[in-house]
Amino acid sequence: MQTALIILAAGQGTRMQSDRVKVLHEVAHAPLLAHAMAAGRALGSPRSVVVAGHQAEAVRAAALEIDPDTEVVEQTEQLGTAHAVAQAAPALRDFGGDAIVLYADTPFVRPETLAAMAEARKDHAVVVLGFEPADPARYGRLVMQGDDLDRIVEFKDATEQERAIGLCNSGVIAAKAELLFELISEVGNDNAAQEYYLTDIVALARARGLSAGVVTCDESETLGVNSRADLARAEAAFQARARDAALAGGVTLTAPETVFFAHDTVIGRDAVIEPNVVFGPGVTVESGAIIRAFSHLEGCHVSRGAVVGPYARLRPGAELSEDVRVGNFVEIKNAQIAEGAKVNHLTYIGDAGVGPRANIGAGTVTCNYDGVFKHRTEIGADAFIGSDTMLVAPVTVGAGAMTASGSVITGDVPDGALALGRARQQNKPGLAEKLMGRLRAQKEQQKRD
Amino acid sequence: MQTALIILAAGQGTRMQSDRVKVLHEVAHAPLLAHAMAAGRALGSPRSVVVAGHQAEAVRAAALEIDPDTEVVEQTEQLGTAHAVAQAAPALRDFGGDAIVLYADTPFVRPETLAAMAEARKDHAVVVLGFEPADPARYGRLVMQGDDLDRIVEFKDATEQERAIGLCNSGVIAAKAELLFELISEVGNDNAAQEYYLTDIVALARARGLSAGVVTCDESETLGVNSRADLARAEAAFQARARDAALAGGVTLTAPETVFFAHDTVIGRDAVIEPNVVFGPGVTVESGAIIRAFSHLEGCHVSRGAVVGPYARLRPGAELSEDVRVGNFVEIKNAQIAEGAKVNHLTYIGDAGVGPRANIGAGTVTCNYDGVFKHRTEIGADAFIGSDTMLVAPVTVGAGAMTASGSVITGDVPDGALALGRARQQNKPGLAEKLMGRLRAQKEQQKRD
Amino acid sequence: MQTALIILAAGQGTRMQSDRVKVLHEVAHAPLLAHAMAAGRALGSPRSVVVAGHQAEAVRAAALEIDPDTEVVEQTEQLGTAHAVAQAAPALRDFGGDAIVLYADTPFVRPETLAAMAEARKDHAVVVLGFEPADPARYGRLVMQGDDLDRIVEFKDATEQERAIGLCNSGVIAAKAELLFELISEVGNDNAAQEYYLTDIVALARARGLSAGVVTCDESETLGVNSRADLARAEAAFQARARDAALAGGVTLTAPETVFFAHDTVIGRDAVIEPNVVFGPGVTVESGAIIRAFSHLEGCHVSRGAVVGPYARLRPGAELSEDVRVGNFVEIKNAQIAEGAKVNHLTYIGDAGVGPRANIGAGTVTCNYDGVFKHRTEIGADAFIGSDTMLVAPVTVGAGAMTASGSVITGDVPDGALALGRARQQNKPGLAEKLMGRLRAQKEQQKRD
Repeated sequence: MQTALIILAAGQGTRMQSDRVKVLHEVAHAPLLAHAMAAGRALGSPRSVVVAGHQAEAVRAAALEIDPDTEVVEQTEQLGTAHAVAQAAPALRDFGGDAIVLYADTPFVRPETLAAMAEARKDHAVVVLGFEPADPARYGRLVMQGDDLDRIVEFKDATEQERAIGLCNSGVIAAKAELLFELISEVGNDNAAQEYYLTDIVALARARGLSAGVVTCDESETLGVNSRADLARAEAAFQARARDAALAGGVTLTAPETVFFAHDTVIGRDAVIEPNVVFGPGVTVESGAIIRAFSHLEGCHVSRGAVVGPYARLRPGAELSEDVRVGNFVEIKNAQIAEGAKVNHLTYIGDAGVGPRANIGAGTVTCNYDGVFKHRTEIGADAFIGSDTMLVAPVTVGAGAMTASGSVITGDVPDGALALGRARQQNKPGLAEKLMGRLRAQKEQQKRD
Repeated sequence: MQTALIILAAGQGTRMQSDRVKVLHEVAHAPLLAHAMAAGRALGSPRSVVVAGHQAEAVRAAALEIDPDTEVVEQTEQLGTAHAVAQAAPALRDFGGDAIVLYADTPFVRPETLAAMAEARKDHAVVVLGFEPADPARYGRLVMQGDDLDRIVEFKDATEQERAIGLCNSGVIAAKAELLFELISEVGNDNAAQEYYLTDIVALARARGLSAGVVTCDESETLGVNSRADLARAEAAFQARARDAALAGGVTLTAPETVFFAHDTVIGRDAVIEPNVVFGPGVTVESGAIIRAFSHLEGCHVSRGAVVGPYARLRPGAELSEDVRVGNFVEIKNAQIAEGAKVNHLTYIGDAGVGPRANIGAGTVTCNYDGVFKHRTEIGADAFIGSDTMLVAPVTVGAGAMTASGSVITGDVPDGALALGRARQQNKPGLAEKLMGRLRAQKEQQKRD
Repeated sequence: MQTALIILAAGQGTRMQSDRVKVLHEVAHAPLLAHAMAAGRALGSPRSVVVAGHQAEAVRAAALEIDPDTEVVEQTEQLGTAHAVAQAAPALRDFGGDAIVLYADTPFVRPETLAAMAEARKDHAVVVLGFEPADPARYGRLVMQGDDLDRIVEFKDATEQERAIGLCNSGVIAAKAELLFELISEVGNDNAAQEYYLTDIVALARARGLSAGVVTCDESETLGVNSRADLARAEAAFQARARDAALAGGVTLTAPETVFFAHDTVIGRDAVIEPNVVFGPGVTVESGAIIRAFSHLEGCHVSRGAVVGPYARLRPGAELSEDVRVGNFVEIKNAQIAEGAKVNHLTYIGDAGVGPRANIGAGTVTCNYDGVFKHRTEIGADAFIGSDTMLVAPVTVGAGAMTASGSVITGDVPDGALALGRARQQNKPGLAEKLMGRLRAQKEQQKRD
């Protein structure tokens, strides 16, 4: 049986205190919505329908960017979760399989948990995801009858005995899609908030003589995001999992709590990550590479044997081959650095190719921007770029060529040539003494005035 | 009834292991003394008297810098808390209101707590601040008689029954100033340490038939600082509160535990603060600005839409207008950066004005210091400063002007002009090969030798 | 009685998921093996024997680098702990004293604990180190008979009653060396794993009528490293101890949890360490120095009154005299910076001497590398190095000399002289406007195409 996902993403999230709709706030550099959708993809869901509401256009655009095959429907009024799910009915009219309802602001339900729900559907018409929190607080309780779910009772309606139940309702529900929409059409809004609640379908199913069941998950999977503090907690939980996974995979993290991964970071075995390293999206680091303290990497690749940082900034398109060395206060963007090349100090390399074993001196800049266009710099194998060389792109420095330190290179340098572009040094004897004396006298005068 | 503050700040703090007197050690970039004084200001206290002792001159200078209206009196001998308070008597001789005694090394009592004490004075002649610590340990206990405080008993003098009391003495006391000094004059020093203890005034008041009462506060408010470890804990407690407040105010903190605020940091709603950001004193960040990882800000203003960092250092006087971009390894000091200007890489801008939409190339330096004086650089709207331009101040670059990369600009550049100051590039064919060959041969020779 | 150490370091550490043998993984920049050996040195052990196995050559080299007087023997087959210890017998044949068996992957047993074991040897032929963990789990239990150790029982062989014992076996054992090897020769391998277990010697000693005793230590001392997560925990435990020690010694750590020490870091009283500072090996910081946020120090010395950072990188051989100022985005390597000198921004100083009170402008680089050799730069007292000066080493700038900003200095500058090496600025009126106009038109054209 195939299982479609219905992801509710319509709420505004007032408690976020934000102009941005809640589900587009990010954890590990991906919006909450993307995390919810990822669970579905991991499950192998053939269809996913996102129900947008507040800032529907922004949510639609984000959803399609994450997965162009997703369908986005709009809930124009916020009349409750059952009403939100109902908006997905037209999109799934011809879908013969199951549907699971997820919440974009509770995006950390594991694929294994969703798979267990799909499996439990063999025994029950409706399957609810439950959890046993340390503090059940005001969650709705799941009242069991043997292995069957008898009913869901809201905390405010629960008896003392029911409040003693530890098993709580996550709101995640699975059923055959057709049945789901049928039951939903029967849900009423005769309650204080005048909302249509999805949980009511359990009672409706039971009234028809259908069986309901429960699958349980860890409390951490049901962590909902309602405030910035929740968002920070969700980020922390994500990072804790990512750090544990890296350690288990044979990565040395000197101080795991100071390393921040993105949702898609890949680090090889025997890589070493020193304290205070931040990974943006799109980074792969091969086995045995060393990422030193205070480095910041986004959209880049670091090969085996490379040493990066401290204080290295690798931006999108930086590709470091084996044994490359990128040192401190160095920024690399959209540039391929070939094996064994060294860029050790205070340098900006953008839109460039650096050949094998080339050495880039301190203070070098690829002047890639003329105010309107970006241009490319090519540096050959074994080239030696003197300190403070300005490479005015487009420009090529040949293999084995050198540039004298302090030179501005505006034209190509042939293989093996030395390029110079600087004035000759002149010493003016005694002039420093004279100038400084004059300035100091001026200052004395000012003090007296 | 108005309430004056008497802040005891005379102790040396031996356990700090420091040459600096304890109350001048800092939390969130303000001395402990300033935190204690701030509680009084928040209460609307019309008078505050600081009792200095060790390093009295340094404490006096600090107190007056924090609040020029404060009065500082000196306790020349350290004879106990009652004796310390007595030093404030002359300063408050004509003050008809109440006085609260605070401790500069226990500076986190909330203004609301002090207000509650002032309120409780309506019912009691003397009001003591109590707290119920998780571990009452060796604190003095508050022995109640109904709603009245019967007496304070020191731990060492307490019976088993009294030691079972959870309510402890913080030492903070409120009374009518006149009564306070009267009672204090009756305090004796007939005890092991031969000190005059302020807490003795409760028994003296009771002996006169006056009533004493208790106001309680959270244990965290009574956190005292006696060692560097305590100081670190106080800093951590301050930071935890500041982070929670920022989150509640709608700021995204990706990793709150890695962001360090100063006592006066102001961050707008929907601002994003990435991991590892440090705020020194005097920073305001407007709504929607983004402060990227590893940035360090002091005494600066960041406007809406600006993006700062990673690795940006903003120093006092840096003012960033809307949509400004300050990138990595960039330092800005005492400079106004107008809207939409970009300073993206490896640059020092000091004592300068940068016009709207100007673009500052990598490696640019405003040479603002001649060894004696500082001078100013002005860069016009839409100017394009080429990489590695040295702007030798005082100097002006006009609107829409350009500088060629690698130029040293010593004179003004008119609007729309291009300024050049660099030698022409020459290529010496084969010379790099020859030079490098010679060096390598030399090295080979050395190895053989 | 003298005590030799036998340090077992033969295991591979499969759960580390590493190509590197476990005992060479590092905590606080020293291999686990070094931490174990340090405990022995602190005890005043006259002899230490390391038993290597997996990657024996690498372990041997590391051991000899840590302590050239250590002896390294090889266990070619991994047949159990007793077998490992037996490999040390030839090395200690003539040693008349005691021996303690330690484990390189459990390297945090304190010297005081080892001393207590040596002392307990006066009363017992064999002394075992025990501990009482919060969760005894599957550790072997120490069954006592009065003050004597009756026997060690493995968890799997233990009765319910024995499992209730809280005192567990750390595996660390002391005995007279001669007796140790004698007992070991009697140990059999008649067990499931067919291994020779060192703990069996307790039963063998008891069978001879000899007495065994127990010394206990804190659980934290027996923290073993079997995985990367364990390694991270060991690092965290080390750092927690180092931070507490620094605070107790009168160092201000604003945020202790963000400061990372090496095994040999020395920080003076009243030094201030701001958040996010990383110390590599070989750093000493004198009293009253300030290390600002985001700084990274290795192999360097910082004197009283110096201020370092934020974002300063001090590499091996950096020696900062009193009142030196090293600012942001500055790297110093193998260089002596004399008192009062300032290197404030975006600079690389390598292989150099900087004289007292010299001022180094932003963007300065000592060009110390010609592609093959490193050369030295000497800067005199009170020299003023203009921004973006390239100092092409070997080169000397005299006392009180100046360099004009943007100059490339290839020859020595006499005392008091001004050195210039730059082209004169030319302004081309209207040219910027024209160039930019042309580029913009080109872009418009491209868009239309």
